[in-house]
Amino acid sequence: MAATARRFNAMTATCPSREVLAHVADKWTVLILGVLTEDTTRFNELRRRVQGITQKVLTQTLRDLERLGFVSRKIYAEVPPRVEYSLTPLGRSLVRVLDNVREWADTHTGEVLAAQQRFERQAAAKAQIRT
Amino acid sequence: MAATARRFNAMTATCPSREVLAHVADKWTVLILGVLTEDTTRFNELRRRVQGITQKVLTQTLRDLERLGFVSRKIYAEVPPRVEYSLTPLGRSLVRVLDNVREWADTHTGEVLAAQQRFERQAAAKAQIRT
Repeated sequence: MAATARRFNAMTATCPSREVLAHVADKWTVLILGVLTEDTTRFNELRRRVQGITQKVLTQTLRDLERLGFVSRKIYAEVPPRVEYSLTPLGRSLVRVLDNVREWADTHTGEVLAAQQRFERQAAAKAQIRT
Repeated sequence: MAATARRFNAMTATCPSREVLAHVADKWTVLILGVLTEDTTRFNELRRRVQGITQKVLTQTLRDLERLGFVSRKIYAEVPPRVEYSLTPLGRSLVRVLDNVREWADTHTGEVLAAQQRFERQAAAKAQIRT
């Protein structure tokens, strides 16, 4: 008999999946895993591809992603040591849903910018009425 | 001739889609839009369903989601005034990718917890070797 799979629910504040969601639904996670989808990558290459990320944030995020089981880190005994990051099978499963989020943002940003302009105009018009 | 659609790229720090991604890849956005997928919802009901969110964060996030064009806010002239939130067509398009992220977290949290335990054990073993 198959055991009933334990179900988690991120709507519940104390459920562990809330914290998993917090790490997963994060722009740096989306961008870093997006680069790793293509290939095993070294730290400096990641830093160049995910433009604007600081060394500190990249280091911390990579460590979180390794701890959560999404990324594996391999050190080669060279001088200077070479460190490479790649997706684990769990990370590959995750990136399939996260790449759709990145793709959505790249595809719909024009519509979002238009919506923002409408919102600002309406807010300005309301302010006008009040004065 | 169809005009070439302008393409955005969130990997570029200054591209507007980076900011769109920052709002979209956010746990509160995922959870709030997840509730709104089901039905038009009032503020207090949202606050009850997205457990643990503060009034301040819910207010601010809803305003951002409205400004970005994902959520529409309707006020009914009752006493006290009734305010209802629902998804716009753009928000419905977004929630189709975000619900997969929430579903992924709820489904894979068991594996993430197991990976975390392995990581902590390995870190402890390394610390042991050093002492």
